[in-house]
Amino acid sequence: MSKSFYGEKNLTMLTDFYELTMANGYFANEFKDRICYFDMFFRKVPDDGGFAIMAGVEQLVEYLSELRFTEEDIDYLRSKNIFNAEFLEYLKNFKFCCDVWAVPEGTPIFPGEPIITVRGPAIQAQFIETMVLLCINHQSLIATKTNRIVRAAQGRAVMEFGSRRAQGFDGAVYGARAAYIGGCAGTACTISDQLFGVPALGTMAHSWVQLFDSEYEAFKAYATEYPGNCVLLVDTYNVLKSGVPNAIKVFNEVLVPQGFRPAGIRIDSGDITYLSRKARRMLDEAGFEDCKICASNSLDEYIIRDMLMQGAKVDSFGVGERLITSSSEPVFGGVYKLAAVERADGSLIPKIKISENVTKITTPCFKNVWRLFDRETDKAIADVITMHDEVIEDEKPYTIFDPDHIWKRKTVENFRAVPLLTQIFKGGECVYTPRALGAIRAYCMAQVDTLWEEVTRFENPHNYYVDLSQRLWDEKNRMLSEKTY
Amino acid sequence: MSKSFYGEKNLTMLTDFYELTMANGYFANEFKDRICYFDMFFRKVPDDGGFAIMAGVEQLVEYLSELRFTEEDIDYLRSKNIFNAEFLEYLKNFKFCCDVWAVPEGTPIFPGEPIITVRGPAIQAQFIETMVLLCINHQSLIATKTNRIVRAAQGRAVMEFGSRRAQGFDGAVYGARAAYIGGCAGTACTISDQLFGVPALGTMAHSWVQLFDSEYEAFKAYATEYPGNCVLLVDTYNVLKSGVPNAIKVFNEVLVPQGFRPAGIRIDSGDITYLSRKARRMLDEAGFEDCKICASNSLDEYIIRDMLMQGAKVDSFGVGERLITSSSEPVFGGVYKLAAVERADGSLIPKIKISENVTKITTPCFKNVWRLFDRETDKAIADVITMHDEVIEDEKPYTIFDPDHIWKRKTVENFRAVPLLTQIFKGGECVYTPRALGAIRAYCMAQVDTLWEEVTRFENPHNYYVDLSQRLWDEKNRMLSEKTY
Repeated sequence: MSKSFYGEKNLTMLTDFYELTMANGYFANEFKDRICYFDMFFRKVPDDGGFAIMAGVEQLVEYLSELRFTEEDIDYLRSKNIFNAEFLEYLKNFKFCCDVWAVPEGTPIFPGEPIITVRGPAIQAQFIETMVLLCINHQSLIATKTNRIVRAAQGRAVMEFGSRRAQGFDGAVYGARAAYIGGCAGTACTISDQLFGVPALGTMAHSWVQLFDSEYEAFKAYATEYPGNCVLLVDTYNVLKSGVPNAIKVFNEVLVPQGFRPAGIRIDSGDITYLSRKARRMLDEAGFEDCKICASNSLDEYIIRDMLMQGAKVDSFGVGERLITSSSEPVFGGVYKLAAVERADGSLIPKIKISENVTKITTPCFKNVWRLFDRETDKAIADVITMHDEVIEDEKPYTIFDPDHIWKRKTVENFRAVPLLTQIFKGGECVYTPRALGAIRAYCMAQVDTLWEEVTRFENPHNYYVDLSQRLWDEKNRMLSEKTY
Repeated sequence: MSKSFYGEKNLTMLTDFYELTMANGYFANEFKDRICYFDMFFRKVPDDGGFAIMAGVEQLVEYLSELRFTEEDIDYLRSKNIFNAEFLEYLKNFKFCCDVWAVPEGTPIFPGEPIITVRGPAIQAQFIETMVLLCINHQSLIATKTNRIVRAAQGRAVMEFGSRRAQGFDGAVYGARAAYIGGCAGTACTISDQLFGVPALGTMAHSWVQLFDSEYEAFKAYATEYPGNCVLLVDTYNVLKSGVPNAIKVFNEVLVPQGFRPAGIRIDSGDITYLSRKARRMLDEAGFEDCKICASNSLDEYIIRDMLMQGAKVDSFGVGERLITSSSEPVFGGVYKLAAVERADGSLIPKIKISENVTKITTPCFKNVWRLFDRETDKAIADVITMHDEVIEDEKPYTIFDPDHIWKRKTVENFRAVPLLTQIFKGGECVYTPRALGAIRAYCMAQVDTLWEEVTRFENPHNYYVDLSQRLWDEKNRMLSEKTY
């Protein structure tokens, strides 16, 4: 099976219509070959968290690799009667030739820093805006939410169970991929296992139990079929009066004689904290201390935290709709903004978007982002946005400062400086090195571990420093001072 | 281009893994051919609204029409080492043979009533659960949210602008389709126009304005390229000091001499109520009373309602993330529950899911839903869930009653009774009649007009009656009385 969910389908036309009207306009205005620099960044971490998780780069790479206009696309555009014939001819021979940089998937990311940078002819660099944002916004949202939920579970496995409530097919499929990056142990979404290797699992629904004449018979049939992986759903009728006693009976009658141990029970309704403690005791008294208890039913990071705080005896969590839609904040607000334009001689004209709302002011210039790690603790100290050609030398002390309150300064020593933006397209050629999803997930966990716990709090996290280099700050400040409105 | 977004891609494996473990189990337990009845219904209208809008049936039809297991699917399942060889052989020769009924797209729907009913062998009727829910939950969510936003706009056009913040590719594509059903006038999502005929439009981003040396030059270039459809984005620098004056200058210099009129301006930030009133006056004074004002920037039904209440001079709205993710409540909680099982002689054993939480108790039996319309006002009076073979004869008076408070009774006369569930698959054969999306949209508008305005309120809407027929109520009550827990 094709690694891409869409197989041969060309997603070129999944673009905001204005990208096309602007492209046609750039073409008419000789802007077609004018080299521009665009950044994707975001302004706010969902759920007021302290950091987000980068995800979706691989799907962006697939899209950019396939970017071409078919005859059908051209015919469709011609039918709109607003596009020039020369422009349509240009699209027919379209060849993607941009440079693209991305922060690797699984990296913790912070507001204001470029996470994707695109350099290329205006007509191309503008056109890809919609899909850059769509790919990264969606998966970063889900990876970020999942990471919160996984941290709440304190080492217990979290399974992604949300396909049925996802927003569209690849809301489910790529959602499961992003959830795995963010730390889920697996998914219920079978095709995500088939396509990406996200471990899929699942056992039974209430309907299995209802179909049989009794819960006992339903359990017995399941245990007979799956003695080595017998997880029973115990809340169809009544967890403590019926579900757990029937499960214990079936474990003893079917599994034990064959030398198997029960894998677990699942509770999907009711007061799970209370029920899990009672069920734990019943299982333990029956000699099934090794039988795991899985909880599901509208869980999220807050409910899981509270359950564990109140002594719920739960070994793993199945999390559905609140993870797969990031329901508490279902939008990752990444934006894509012009940062610079090249003159014919290759020198750059920085571009800034000014707004009454200071949080909406962009940072101009062709940039990079560096993460500074303390060599002793291996903790992340700060991110510094620099000019693209700047290098932060970590052999000598480096002074960082708050870009809004420049008297807040700090000189760091004994640190490692790691540039975060990695080139994934060079002159239109893909130079991205695919990584196994499991490796991305492991990298994500390791990187989250570099954050001070003050940054990883669910509420009121410490604001991680995202500073500007002196050169970049000077340039931005110069442009702001010269603004005429 | 294929009408289906996925073209040749087979989505069979987009299913919760437990559907497969249960299917394998049913097979082993001779349940494979046992005829079951499942209902999809939902328990709560998103945003505490008074009704939802049915959508997504066409994508469900496409999925069911293509349902088959490829060699790759079988190989993948075999690799899991838990499925029986005979079961995998069965899947290889799988032929969908269920009967399926659906409430037509665009119909207002209410909690508790079946909106999809499936009759077929357990193994099949169970298997399709995930995709039934995924298709209908997603698009019904977006159609429902859109309808709220469109109603807030009081006749002004609402455009769907959310692709970049959608949850995955078809979060955008099918989201735009559902938004059109719910009443949007069009979309920014080009491929949704190409695939489904949702009218696409768009003009320029801030980056267009920034790329030129000045806002004036950017506007002039755009007006020159698109004199017949010139909408200018006026908030890149300063709406009232720069954007609107430059727009007026360009309208006068470029459009008027050629005999064109300006199409509009768009304001995407700031206090749009205030800015639109000022801009309206400036445009009017310049003789452009016919120039429309479009507003965008994190709008939803509440903001639009407040803007209009405070006298905003806005002619159309572009609504992005809050529509395409239904951000205030991003989950449509449809569920799929067993309602009955057939005996060998064809008689039915009704099935009920009992819960401590009374709102989670299901309604058993093979059912239909009827909507009763007053013949005089053409307003919807109530929905009545009946046995599937019951007919509500509208020539004679009919008594409806509250299923929870049965002393609340009402006899209706002079009404039309319309059955809502329509068969879309018969013995596995598709009998669904595709409808043009524009026709579905018009039907939706007309059907929403049959609701009393008490039901269409945003907050505290009147609870529309969803009653049970006497026969169905008797049966449900009998089963509840006989429960043993």
